[in-house]
Amino acid sequence: MSRTAFTIGIDYGTNSVRAVVVDCADGREIGTHVFAYPSGDQGVLLDPKQPHLARQNPADYIDGLRASVTGALGAAEGQAGFSRDRVVGIGVDTTGSTPLPVDAQGRALAMDPKWKNNLAAYAWLWKDHTSASEAAAITSTAAAHAPEYLAPIGGTYSSEWWWSKIWHCLKTAPDVFDAAASWVELADYVPAVLSGVTDARAIVRCVCAAGHKAMYSETWGGLPSKAFLTRLDPKLAALRDRLYDKAWPPGRPAGQLSDEWARAFGLKPGIAIAMGGFDAHYGAVGSGVQTGTLVKIIGTSTCDCAVAPATDRIADIPGICGIVNGSIMPGYFGIEAGQSAVGDILKWWVEGICEGSDALHAQLSTEAKQLAPGESGLIALDWNNGNRTILVDPRLTGLILGQTLHTTRAEIYRALIEATAYGARAIIERMREYGVPIERVVCCGGIAEKNDLFMQIYADVIGQPMLIAGSPQTPALGAAIAAAVTAGEAAGGYANWQTAQERMTRLKTKRFEPRPDARAVYDRLYAIYRELHDAFGGVTGARPDLASVMKRLLSIKERAVSALAC
Amino acid sequence: MSRTAFTIGIDYGTNSVRAVVVDCADGREIGTHVFAYPSGDQGVLLDPKQPHLARQNPADYIDGLRASVTGALGAAEGQAGFSRDRVVGIGVDTTGSTPLPVDAQGRALAMDPKWKNNLAAYAWLWKDHTSASEAAAITSTAAAHAPEYLAPIGGTYSSEWWWSKIWHCLKTAPDVFDAAASWVELADYVPAVLSGVTDARAIVRCVCAAGHKAMYSETWGGLPSKAFLTRLDPKLAALRDRLYDKAWPPGRPAGQLSDEWARAFGLKPGIAIAMGGFDAHYGAVGSGVQTGTLVKIIGTSTCDCAVAPATDRIADIPGICGIVNGSIMPGYFGIEAGQSAVGDILKWWVEGICEGSDALHAQLSTEAKQLAPGESGLIALDWNNGNRTILVDPRLTGLILGQTLHTTRAEIYRALIEATAYGARAIIERMREYGVPIERVVCCGGIAEKNDLFMQIYADVIGQPMLIAGSPQTPALGAAIAAAVTAGEAAGGYANWQTAQERMTRLKTKRFEPRPDARAVYDRLYAIYRELHDAFGGVTGARPDLASVMKRLLSIKERAVSALAC
Repeated sequence: MSRTAFTIGIDYGTNSVRAVVVDCADGREIGTHVFAYPSGDQGVLLDPKQPHLARQNPADYIDGLRASVTGALGAAEGQAGFSRDRVVGIGVDTTGSTPLPVDAQGRALAMDPKWKNNLAAYAWLWKDHTSASEAAAITSTAAAHAPEYLAPIGGTYSSEWWWSKIWHCLKTAPDVFDAAASWVELADYVPAVLSGVTDARAIVRCVCAAGHKAMYSETWGGLPSKAFLTRLDPKLAALRDRLYDKAWPPGRPAGQLSDEWARAFGLKPGIAIAMGGFDAHYGAVGSGVQTGTLVKIIGTSTCDCAVAPATDRIADIPGICGIVNGSIMPGYFGIEAGQSAVGDILKWWVEGICEGSDALHAQLSTEAKQLAPGESGLIALDWNNGNRTILVDPRLTGLILGQTLHTTRAEIYRALIEATAYGARAIIERMREYGVPIERVVCCGGIAEKNDLFMQIYADVIGQPMLIAGSPQTPALGAAIAAAVTAGEAAGGYANWQTAQERMTRLKTKRFEPRPDARAVYDRLYAIYRELHDAFGGVTGARPDLASVMKRLLSIKERAVSALAC
Repeated sequence: MSRTAFTIGIDYGTNSVRAVVVDCADGREIGTHVFAYPSGDQGVLLDPKQPHLARQNPADYIDGLRASVTGALGAAEGQAGFSRDRVVGIGVDTTGSTPLPVDAQGRALAMDPKWKNNLAAYAWLWKDHTSASEAAAITSTAAAHAPEYLAPIGGTYSSEWWWSKIWHCLKTAPDVFDAAASWVELADYVPAVLSGVTDARAIVRCVCAAGHKAMYSETWGGLPSKAFLTRLDPKLAALRDRLYDKAWPPGRPAGQLSDEWARAFGLKPGIAIAMGGFDAHYGAVGSGVQTGTLVKIIGTSTCDCAVAPATDRIADIPGICGIVNGSIMPGYFGIEAGQSAVGDILKWWVEGICEGSDALHAQLSTEAKQLAPGESGLIALDWNNGNRTILVDPRLTGLILGQTLHTTRAEIYRALIEATAYGARAIIERMREYGVPIERVVCCGGIAEKNDLFMQIYADVIGQPMLIAGSPQTPALGAAIAAAVTAGEAAGGYANWQTAQERMTRLKTKRFEPRPDARAVYDRLYAIYRELHDAFGGVTGARPDLASVMKRLLSIKERAVSALAC
């Protein structure tokens, strides 16, 4: 082993935070520790009166920082070659958009006892959906007065994002809004904490949060103009001065480890703190994203990430959530898409409808595996939680079609997996259509790790091999890679991202190849899916032949059944 | 009590036969007995190699006749005013089309040991679907050469019907076909047995089976022409001579009780045997069908019956299964429609998908009752078993639309009930559109008896009170009424159907009134149902606004939820 340097990746999830100590030589994870957030319901603060509210306690972030890093370092102790003074950097990834209000010293407002009982002063978790009306107003205002803001985010501003949430705070908790010196994304907050920042103005902002969630672009001089913000609310325009003028891609340091945290962890003070980033983006890095690779992070929902050299001209891609220069790696456009429910749809079916648990997931998966493509006669739309990409429409709902009196729960289970695969294919086709090459698909996340049926269906539907990322913790690994690049070659890290990824990431040997027979059936089914997708999704010019849909499915079914009988 | 006459109604169902002794004065059922068919799977003979096959053993019919009538008479013994010599007639209703081959003496071929092992020689139960290709060929041949045959049966000949089955027998079991002196509908077979018929040519045929299932009409001289049958198979044309030239409406006698059966039952020989009829038709009679009344027999599937004076000009009604002069009562067109799955769809959901039993039916019903119309955001099509009326298309399948990650099994349970109610409304609207008045809706059958939620939804969706027939055994009661009319006033029966119905039928006091608020919501939902129905059902000129369907459902849902909050 030529290098003897280590970095730490810290992954802030929805329910817990995980720290991983990584060997820079080969990306091996030599120590890991998970800290479950103690507050609320598995770390999420809820309000029975506001069902769309989802907040987090910033104290959990700090406690989790301390506990997870301490635990991971403790686990690494004694591993060959490891010592704490060989840790050269720390990287952080988080959920997002998860903004929180801070005071002038950059401290989370919620940590001040004064705001203890006001949930608006806490962190507004990505899945907080209280701000739907603000999101709609931002979309319509931008469409009328600044359509350029909408182009790189797929045409619709989301209730999950930065400005919707801050504006909702201004409307519903003006005291909190007024007390906030600034607002910070969680992805920027943690690196600032590690760096010992004591001035809100000194917090370094990452372009991934800024560009994907806050309508930041250097093309129009950073955040949206004051004139635009004034149309929403003059107080938002005034806030703009207290936010930031510049956001940075990963690779540069967000700061250096403060003496205090260095003492707490037994690490060298001053080591590199990488720019924070979103979990999906660093997950893509940890999965080996490069030009021509699509990384699919498949869990309850899906995030799809690709990059394209920033020297290319990439058109705005209708329906793609975000195309932001430098958001995943410097020098590349980061391209982000996603499906709003994937694992969640199966969970709904198995747990919500069939009232089963993990055992039933396994049983239905086994039964569904026995079915040939097309054999059920079913087709479904994967819209139980709306459609993020490529329709960008939360007001879409699920559909299951083709059932008879003999349709089984396993058949519907499989049809729902297939529906998410069709949705995935629609995203890939859209990207290709607009010039983003997709030659390799690398999957990571819980479903990619565990559900072979799912992966085989994806290979068959998409018509490409499904590769699986080597690490089960790609976001933390990606953050550790960012730390290695930020620390630089001289410190034992890397001079560039490509080399770091080549050395520190790998694929599993297990991969899923498309089967030609299955692929041919799925091509026919996908055509039907697209007819329904375009018709119910309101795609202009959709001309579905609905009168033949059920009959076509029956004929595919009959062909599948007779092929089985042979 | 002025009259002291009694009749017996015998109802041949799919799994059992029931006999009921009825007081002609008031329709009171004073003795009843049920005999479960001993053969096969609950009376149905199956063949694992032919999943669409469903036959019955004619020996069960005879054994059941003896046991059920004997049992019912035994139960009536001792009831005030009853004695066996006051029984003045017997009526029979059966499933249909359930044809069976008979020998020259009119005996069921299957009773001959020679044919014991050949299922083609048994009775071809209504739900035998082995003859799909023959049905399709009959439809296309008629469409090309004799479209008038199709008009009164809704445009499509069914695999469940007479000619399809006999032709399939000819093709697949020619020895049975050749051995059959004739073929008889079960509805005609049982009265012939009771009458002691010993010559197949003497079997009296009812117009309900002939007209609804065998393309019989006096307009074209009875059964389909030999020229037409020759196009199917010359042997069918030759069979025509061994069938019948004339079929009769109910009201005339099919025969008189034979000495042998009179002895067996302790009844007077020679009493009237009424014309046989289908269970749905006599069920309509027993529910008090008259001009302006729709009788809905709601069970696993639904049969809807109405009558219109035969003096009126009733146009062929597209998509209505059958309009046959005299098929329900003499002097009226019998108009028959139906939904191919109603209770069966709920059974599929509760037992097939949720894997529950009666207790879960009750639980989901209770939960579904708590929901306001529109609150689930769901809409479904009731086509899990195809659509009999008004699309006449077995190659249609189910659809559920509008589900989210929070959709519950009770919400889908309710949406499926609603879907069947929309299907029921479509039938009523179609009948009205073509001049059949529907001023009253009387329901009978298991669901009407037991499921209040179901009935209330029907009232709200259809916008009319749902009345419930007074007897839980309307087919047997209707057969008993037919016997009373056939016996005539002098014998203690009645001179006409109207008087007999007035005296012998009643409604339950429980009835379900439409609620104006619910009705308004269901009007909006029904409009969406019709858009989907017409689009997927292939109705010419359908112009659904699919792009807004999910959004309209969400807005109905939101309105329902906010109304609940008030």
